[in-house]
Amino acid sequence: MSNIGIWHLLHNRCNNFFTGGSTGLNCIKFYIEDYLVGYIHREFLPQLAKYSSVFVINSDCVRLHPQLGSFEQRTAAVENVMQDLRGSLKALKGWQNEHYGVCVEGHSRALMSVERAASRVLGIKRYGVHINGYTFLSEPSMAPKPPAHVVAGVEAVEGHNELKLSNVPPNLRMWIALRSKSKTNWPGFLDLITAGGLPYSMKALDCAKKEAREEAGIPDGLLENLKPCGTITYAFDDDAGVGAGVAYLYDLELPPDFHPVNCDKEVEEFYLLSPHDVAKLIQTESFKQNCGMTVLDFFIRHGYVDPDENPRLEEWLQLMHYKLPYD
Amino acid sequence: MSNIGIWHLLHNRCNNFFTGGSTGLNCIKFYIEDYLVGYIHREFLPQLAKYSSVFVINSDCVRLHPQLGSFEQRTAAVENVMQDLRGSLKALKGWQNEHYGVCVEGHSRALMSVERAASRVLGIKRYGVHINGYTFLSEPSMAPKPPAHVVAGVEAVEGHNELKLSNVPPNLRMWIALRSKSKTNWPGFLDLITAGGLPYSMKALDCAKKEAREEAGIPDGLLENLKPCGTITYAFDDDAGVGAGVAYLYDLELPPDFHPVNCDKEVEEFYLLSPHDVAKLIQTESFKQNCGMTVLDFFIRHGYVDPDENPRLEEWLQLMHYKLPYD
Repeated sequence: MSNIGIWHLLHNRCNNFFTGGSTGLNCIKFYIEDYLVGYIHREFLPQLAKYSSVFVINSDCVRLHPQLGSFEQRTAAVENVMQDLRGSLKALKGWQNEHYGVCVEGHSRALMSVERAASRVLGIKRYGVHINGYTFLSEPSMAPKPPAHVVAGVEAVEGHNELKLSNVPPNLRMWIALRSKSKTNWPGFLDLITAGGLPYSMKALDCAKKEAREEAGIPDGLLENLKPCGTITYAFDDDAGVGAGVAYLYDLELPPDFHPVNCDKEVEEFYLLSPHDVAKLIQTESFKQNCGMTVLDFFIRHGYVDPDENPRLEEWLQLMHYKLPYD
Repeated sequence: MSNIGIWHLLHNRCNNFFTGGSTGLNCIKFYIEDYLVGYIHREFLPQLAKYSSVFVINSDCVRLHPQLGSFEQRTAAVENVMQDLRGSLKALKGWQNEHYGVCVEGHSRALMSVERAASRVLGIKRYGVHINGYTFLSEPSMAPKPPAHVVAGVEAVEGHNELKLSNVPPNLRMWIALRSKSKTNWPGFLDLITAGGLPYSMKALDCAKKEAREEAGIPDGLLENLKPCGTITYAFDDDAGVGAGVAYLYDLELPPDFHPVNCDKEVEEFYLLSPHDVAKLIQTESFKQNCGMTVLDFFIRHGYVDPDENPRLEEWLQLMHYKLPYD
């Protein structure tokens, strides 16, 4: 079953920009100043070509017009174009009214900001926050049984499980969300307890707290436990454009009697699952792909992925931190 | 001061195979069957050319002779060549009588094994184990002050410190070794409490335990705490050839009253240092480079590297997991 497994998750689902089956490497490069900041599907070019005072289209690259010299000028000009294209460019249907920084030198400096949906069209690297919510039950048997469709997903991976966990505390459980079926992106997929895009000019920790309050009803007192634990990097590609991203990861240990409550209608249900079940679910198509990567990172950091049992561990970590071909 | 900092550590010291100042990318590729398994300095070729029944040298690559069809045949043939070259090839001076697997598909399968020094000449990816030894003091003031030359190294980084740590428990201390001045490799460098190469056919956990017993006198009872925590990957290049490697990482929390004792004369002294001091030392030339990477990984995993304070975090992690150009 080739559509199951850790390799499928990391290589085919999270990083298909780099793989043969994708149009990723046929995209045209997008520059601001001399910084390579994006990858644009060639099929979007006829639309962008109408705005020659904003996008300068050459045979081998697209450049933001050099007369747009400041952060504010660039942001306003690109916003105007994208607003204009909302009716005609299907890729912009997921418009969110959230602006993201176009960053260089890691997350050090932003050259402009763009609407979330437009970031896909331009193939801009986008930042987000991902939270692993977990708890240690005082009595393992007190966890409710997961619903039938989750159990079915777990069973589908039996025999094809590429991830061998060891030394998992028997009372450890992880909170997993089922995304609302009405969401624009990834409706009905399994997900972390909470995650979200990092809007321009917001601190990552503040963003993590905001998402945790809104999506999972976690009170401020518990959010003091948020612990930054690194990043993952990915670059996928689909009809909406290139989805290149970096997620800042946080661990959040919760008390065993806390139950998340969704406050913004973005989550259908929360499940408290064993790490063994979650390990299988991230290998299926029903788990949001980049969040599956974050769960795998959690398992590795916490000591549950023994290299003697998982000989491809180094390759997994390489695919979780693949250097994006950006400046 | 460009020879100080995290970027200098990760980019220039650990991964100079990929950077402009290195001969790395001018090496010739080395294949066994159709697997790309090594990178050889062109200056070594005249020596290897004498053994045409072992190395087939083409204009664009070197291939192990296809008549060497089994693991045993390959291992014996390459061993004979390297033994023969020990007198004439300076790069082989670090001969260790330890064999390493030439692995493909991560650490899944070995095509042959080679002597440690020969692995550098052929630019084979080598595996090792790295242990972070640390403790939580019951009374922070009970730690002895580090010696003057260590303090001087810390002070040299002041003002150039690229790594901002937060949320470090005030009683956390890390054990750091000073390597013996008589060691062939990296004499007199600062290092982890213990680390070592992973010989062919040994399990990583067994190797970690063996090194911990021999280099730091850690008793078996304490080694039950060894926790696998992922990998780092690196590829440096110097006169001895390409040093490409993967280290399997382990955390080891030790009781505050334990003091490591070297049993194999490979360590001069052990120091118990604060994470803030260690963070500075890994940015200097006095810390063994790949082990500095392992310390950085420890800080990230334990929640001490806040992305809001360290905006290049994602790039650091990419350089710690750079995909090696091997099959």
